[in-house]
Amino acid sequence: MEVERKWWGWGAPGEFYDVSNRPNLWSFFRKYGAMEEEVPSVTLEDLKTNIPEPVINRSFLDEITEALKKDAVKTDAYERIMHTYDQNCMDMLLLRKGIIRRAPDAVIYPGSHGDVEKIVGLAHKHDVCVIAFGGGTNVVNGTVPETREKRMIINVDMGRMKKIIKIDNESHIAWIEAGMPGIQLEKELNALGYTSGHDPDSMVYSTVGGWVATRSSGMLSNKYGDFTDLTVSIKMVTPAGTIATPVLPATSAGPDLNRIIAGSEGTFGIITEVVIKIFPLPETAKLNTFLFTTFDQGVKAIQEMVEKECIPALVRLVNEDEVEFALKTARKSKSWFKNKAVDLFFAYLSKIRKIDMDKTCYMILGYKGDKKTVRHRQKITRKICKRNRAIDLGRGAAKTWDEGKYDLILIRDLIVKHGVLTDSAETATVWSNLVSLYNNARKAILDTMQKYAKPAWLGCHISHVYRHGASLYFLFGCKEKKGEEVEQYLDIKNTATAAFVSNGGTVSHHHSVGVLHQPYLKEEIGETAAGLLLAIKKKLDPKNIMNPGKLIPGSGNGDKP
Amino acid sequence: MEVERKWWGWGAPGEFYDVSNRPNLWSFFRKYGAMEEEVPSVTLEDLKTNIPEPVINRSFLDEITEALKKDAVKTDAYERIMHTYDQNCMDMLLLRKGIIRRAPDAVIYPGSHGDVEKIVGLAHKHDVCVIAFGGGTNVVNGTVPETREKRMIINVDMGRMKKIIKIDNESHIAWIEAGMPGIQLEKELNALGYTSGHDPDSMVYSTVGGWVATRSSGMLSNKYGDFTDLTVSIKMVTPAGTIATPVLPATSAGPDLNRIIAGSEGTFGIITEVVIKIFPLPETAKLNTFLFTTFDQGVKAIQEMVEKECIPALVRLVNEDEVEFALKTARKSKSWFKNKAVDLFFAYLSKIRKIDMDKTCYMILGYKGDKKTVRHRQKITRKICKRNRAIDLGRGAAKTWDEGKYDLILIRDLIVKHGVLTDSAETATVWSNLVSLYNNARKAILDTMQKYAKPAWLGCHISHVYRHGASLYFLFGCKEKKGEEVEQYLDIKNTATAAFVSNGGTVSHHHSVGVLHQPYLKEEIGETAAGLLLAIKKKLDPKNIMNPGKLIPGSGNGDKP
Repeated sequence: MEVERKWWGWGAPGEFYDVSNRPNLWSFFRKYGAMEEEVPSVTLEDLKTNIPEPVINRSFLDEITEALKKDAVKTDAYERIMHTYDQNCMDMLLLRKGIIRRAPDAVIYPGSHGDVEKIVGLAHKHDVCVIAFGGGTNVVNGTVPETREKRMIINVDMGRMKKIIKIDNESHIAWIEAGMPGIQLEKELNALGYTSGHDPDSMVYSTVGGWVATRSSGMLSNKYGDFTDLTVSIKMVTPAGTIATPVLPATSAGPDLNRIIAGSEGTFGIITEVVIKIFPLPETAKLNTFLFTTFDQGVKAIQEMVEKECIPALVRLVNEDEVEFALKTARKSKSWFKNKAVDLFFAYLSKIRKIDMDKTCYMILGYKGDKKTVRHRQKITRKICKRNRAIDLGRGAAKTWDEGKYDLILIRDLIVKHGVLTDSAETATVWSNLVSLYNNARKAILDTMQKYAKPAWLGCHISHVYRHGASLYFLFGCKEKKGEEVEQYLDIKNTATAAFVSNGGTVSHHHSVGVLHQPYLKEEIGETAAGLLLAIKKKLDPKNIMNPGKLIPGSGNGDKP
Repeated sequence: MEVERKWWGWGAPGEFYDVSNRPNLWSFFRKYGAMEEEVPSVTLEDLKTNIPEPVINRSFLDEITEALKKDAVKTDAYERIMHTYDQNCMDMLLLRKGIIRRAPDAVIYPGSHGDVEKIVGLAHKHDVCVIAFGGGTNVVNGTVPETREKRMIINVDMGRMKKIIKIDNESHIAWIEAGMPGIQLEKELNALGYTSGHDPDSMVYSTVGGWVATRSSGMLSNKYGDFTDLTVSIKMVTPAGTIATPVLPATSAGPDLNRIIAGSEGTFGIITEVVIKIFPLPETAKLNTFLFTTFDQGVKAIQEMVEKECIPALVRLVNEDEVEFALKTARKSKSWFKNKAVDLFFAYLSKIRKIDMDKTCYMILGYKGDKKTVRHRQKITRKICKRNRAIDLGRGAAKTWDEGKYDLILIRDLIVKHGVLTDSAETATVWSNLVSLYNNARKAILDTMQKYAKPAWLGCHISHVYRHGASLYFLFGCKEKKGEEVEQYLDIKNTATAAFVSNGGTVSHHHSVGVLHQPYLKEEIGETAAGLLLAIKKKLDPKNIMNPGKLIPGSGNGDKP
């Protein structure tokens, strides 16, 4: 790895969720299945001895080693392990159990677009499978090798291609190498007075190329758009040749090539460069929190903001269960007075205002822009919230959330270690269908979890708002059923995806398709469109070497004709 | 035809450009080649006797006549003539000369999605070519039959499919039949308190399906987006089956199917239904006109609006030649006083302000939204214009333009009749390249025109503004060279397109590719991408019956393997 990472879990080796001074955290987690003791796990050394022997295509390996810089090709167990799994809960379970059925046989680090052309060219020549690897933050097994694959599999880690190549200040666009991680991009752009406008939860590790390949959406999508909206041009290396889409503000010259490449999840080729829009750093940024008496009421308020064409850059409506989670895992203030004041305020809401505190939801609103516009929009949205009986909580809760937004995932590692099975499932639908989908999916997911363990926890938030609908992001957690963890995980996850598509939602708003969502894709897009995707793949990748088995139904090695 | 139209020219038979009370119009047109007398033309009756014998696939014709409602299948000469050509100047020249090399052999009017499935199914079965026809406003020969095609060709006129199928008020989306013309859609939506936000010059005739198929862009695109941005879902019938893309606010489930279909120009299938976003009617609409001393200065002002994130819904920067055209063809006011005042004001600008009146450009700005926001944005943009030494001309000129915006094309018919060759060519590029492309393309087009006739006229305007660039719309006119009109037209048109692509522009910002732009497409998108489009076509249309020869290089009948 170019950046040191844990062998299982999120982030750098030293990074852990700080549990200190969170007095209600453990009782909350215990309620939902966390055990006192840690679930036993293998060690990295165990894995190194356990990893299957690599499949080596000697001519390929010799030629590619010859063609690239020294140290670009790695075949050691550590690199292979670090590039085997993604970041979902099942991946963590399998790693901790020491189960690797199929690992990449080599990991290759290109240093340039030309290197990638060499790699894909030789892989095509020698019939070697290629998995493009960005920040390793996928959660749908989009970069996990197919267990049935008999050919050599290489993982192409883009970690050395992370330059800003060029900036066109007049056109507000920047040429970026695909391996550039979000946080570094933002830092470098900020230093030049710009922002990319893209801010996914995975920001610290996920890359520009990965954002394109998976149609990523960031927390500020309401203002800046999803990443496809921010993408101006793409360079992609395929076995059939390189596609470099033109750098244009708009065109009517045939189908939109950028949008054929975006969302292709490495199955057509490897993205090497992306031209993105860049924006001036906003003059000001403001946060507000409102408490709503019910989730539906919060949804209504967002819909009113949409109607008034006044959607804040960030809108996050957190349902009652996620509020419970936030409150129970919150840090106690160091100030005795502040803690008392909070208790008192909550008592006032419950006793005097007669609000059912078990049903209350939070809405976090974030604004970016010039001071005048931000003030104006804050005023309008506050009025809308108040009209929907919301209580203004100031910016406190929003700030706490904002400060910890990239680290929430560390909680996952903590509780997985203590026997809790936890993950996310997300979708999007049009407004007229949103509450019904929310209720139906919630019931379905809870029912399935409760087959295994009671009580089960299911939070949900809305975090991406469009004129015609919004996303729904579910977080689930329950006690893992010993010995059946993987089946239990897949059962819950599949229940969620099935509930989404059968209730008019998408298989995924921003987690892409990968392997986990693939069985549900045909139901969403239909037989003819699925066949079309396969035809595109066959044209660009006639030997099916590019990330086989992902995204496109029927592209798996086992399913090959 | 479902709506009566001229057999050559734009609009309804009785519609003509009103030349009365435009004292300088004829001297202006004469300067650029208009002759006193009219160029002789054949009559519609001549054409009816001249039209080539139809190629009839008897089994297809019998089966389709049987399958559809009475009166859905037409084979008479009038219908065939009316569906032969598009709306560019060359089409007009050929019609007036009585030249029809290949006409559709039948015109079919489906009444429903099911009818279209029957038509495409039977056409595929019997190897009959299918050209989808919307409003007949294409200008790049996107619906003109290939002369070399030996198979029967049917033109599928969508004119009977023009219903609003359903409106989802909560999600702000509407299901529209593809044959719905713009003006009718807008009228019906307006009655319900909505607007589509889409307003192309062709609004009176062009259809929702055509907008999708050609990636249309309307005059208010700065506010509402191009039509692909307004498209939520598409139903398209292909020989390989029907694709109905999901109705969602956003998704990460693979490549964007809507954007594969959009811009396919009938080469993949026939679009039958489109779900579009709808918007509340804006509370207010305002217009302003500013006079800039040079085109470059106007461009600078627009760029400042972009930087301030304050782009009016409508921005139209009209260069000096187009200003000359507007002034020379303008109606004289009935008020003696008003005419004097205008003369006096122009004299003041020229004599006192020392402005070179031959170089001045107009900028029309249009705002839509709530009163407060519109006022705020008018203030900001006015300040920007003033800072760029613009002179506020009030709303007069903008209003005049707005009132006649759909009828400008009627001037084309007037001057073509008097021997002027005239048409448009348009492109888009990023800001850093805009002025250079403008200058280079301008020189190239003028040079080519002047090979044939001097003086030649070349106007230009910017009418679509994006964060990273803008469109350039050229209008040209010069005396036609008798006997070589078609070659002259193609020479000028090709010069323009070649100049665009070799100077970093697109072959077309919103006129699509069709036949006229096709030779330049590969230079824009590259060999691999062009091959990909052909592969998509082959998958959806294995017999190459859907609008063969259009858009995709190598898809022509003559080029078939």
